[in-house]
Amino acid sequence: MEKNIPLKESLCIVKIGGNIINDGEALKAFLQDFSRISKPKLLIHGGGKLLDDLAARLGIAQQMLDGRRITDRATLDLAIMVYAGLINKQIVALLQAAGQQAIGLSGADANVLKASKRRHPQIDFGWVGDLSAEGVNHAFLHGLTADKMIPVLSALSHDGAGNMLNTNADTLASVVAVAMRVYYSVQLYYCFEKQGVLADPADEDSVVPVLYHQDYHKLKEQKRVIKGMIPKLDNAFAALQQGVNDVYILHAVDLLKNINSGHHVGTHLSL
Amino acid sequence: MEKNIPLKESLCIVKIGGNIINDGEALKAFLQDFSRISKPKLLIHGGGKLLDDLAARLGIAQQMLDGRRITDRATLDLAIMVYAGLINKQIVALLQAAGQQAIGLSGADANVLKASKRRHPQIDFGWVGDLSAEGVNHAFLHGLTADKMIPVLSALSHDGAGNMLNTNADTLASVVAVAMRVYYSVQLYYCFEKQGVLADPADEDSVVPVLYHQDYHKLKEQKRVIKGMIPKLDNAFAALQQGVNDVYILHAVDLLKNINSGHHVGTHLSL
Repeated sequence: MEKNIPLKESLCIVKIGGNIINDGEALKAFLQDFSRISKPKLLIHGGGKLLDDLAARLGIAQQMLDGRRITDRATLDLAIMVYAGLINKQIVALLQAAGQQAIGLSGADANVLKASKRRHPQIDFGWVGDLSAEGVNHAFLHGLTADKMIPVLSALSHDGAGNMLNTNADTLASVVAVAMRVYYSVQLYYCFEKQGVLADPADEDSVVPVLYHQDYHKLKEQKRVIKGMIPKLDNAFAALQQGVNDVYILHAVDLLKNINSGHHVGTHLSL
Repeated sequence: MEKNIPLKESLCIVKIGGNIINDGEALKAFLQDFSRISKPKLLIHGGGKLLDDLAARLGIAQQMLDGRRITDRATLDLAIMVYAGLINKQIVALLQAAGQQAIGLSGADANVLKASKRRHPQIDFGWVGDLSAEGVNHAFLHGLTADKMIPVLSALSHDGAGNMLNTNADTLASVVAVAMRVYYSVQLYYCFEKQGVLADPADEDSVVPVLYHQDYHKLKEQKRVIKGMIPKLDNAFAALQQGVNDVYILHAVDLLKNINSGHHVGTHLSL
């Protein structure tokens, strides 16, 4: 007797960040590659560097804590302008020019990402949102992807009480990936300007092809995974632990090679 | 024999502008009223005053010509940040807080508003879009309104070649209203901080209850309709001439009274 297990369709969720976003040519090249992915797909972007630039021009001091931005009201306004405005619309316009039916969304739009304002016993992070998969309007996102549209999410959520919240883009990608498992087999790609997770942060050629969760802990203890890579990998493994099918960390230029050829460039995470 | 003429459902298209947008309390009150409209609806907003404020803070000189903004690259970036970012997301978050399934869109999102960069024989307006009803993705907007969602459009279009374009919000409202006639009987409301069209611009009580097209021409000749009211009324009459069912110009605080009670406060345009 044959088994007929209905396989779920594949959804590519791509997070683009790092220095790709503020390099016009690199961003265009990345979006060309992203356009060539023939599967259903969803794009998530950060943009902290451009926020820093605008803050400097306006003389609004920025404060970071363990890679997280303390978001006072003035900084929240900058985040909304830069993430939901400038970067999001630039990406959407470029994707549209490539024949892609992209639609830019912040977390408030269609209630796509409802979060709660972070309450921390010691530190006031300001207008920062903590997100869980329950806060994702996956039905709406699925309506778009099923209709061959491409949601482009900026790293902002809302609290349902009229306030936008600044949200870490890596976390957002992880949480959206988990939520979309209802409909899809989900592949999550964290694209940035490095080749993957490095066994030695000083050696660009020391990419770990497969990173097991237990080895990640060892690398952390040995301080070979540091700074922004720690929350990124925490988010990436959290997605895997909650049933996302595949999670990769890779250079933006390798995205298409990974998806189309099955050559696993970059780092493939494993539990 | 009875006639069964299927009546089209009504769609309220509301343009909010003027000084309402940069007055936090007035904006909140307006959005509360807007939330109480029980028919399908769509909101369009400007925000020129907030753009001027940001331009001043950044030292980016602004140049207006007959009420139209000359939009160089730096100003376009400001327009995207302020219109598609700050104002649009503030409005959407507040509508969501009022239980409204709002979704903010620029013209690039879902290809909602494709325009052409203005070519003027004498003046280079810069990154300014000229729009026609053919450039409106009315099928997508109708998908949203039919699904009880509320599109919130910022005054930006795109050229289909990767560029955003600054677009007059009054024109945008007129063009979208014309495009949505395919599905709906359309009522178009231009809301601002005056009581309507004034027979005497110096007398706030001289509201014209019904403005006929021929009388508008007389008021213009007599210089009793001046400045920004001229393009606003040109856009408003253009909508009426192209089959939009009703066009009103009224104070934002009177919107609900007009829609719900049938009391025609403000100015009702007529051909």
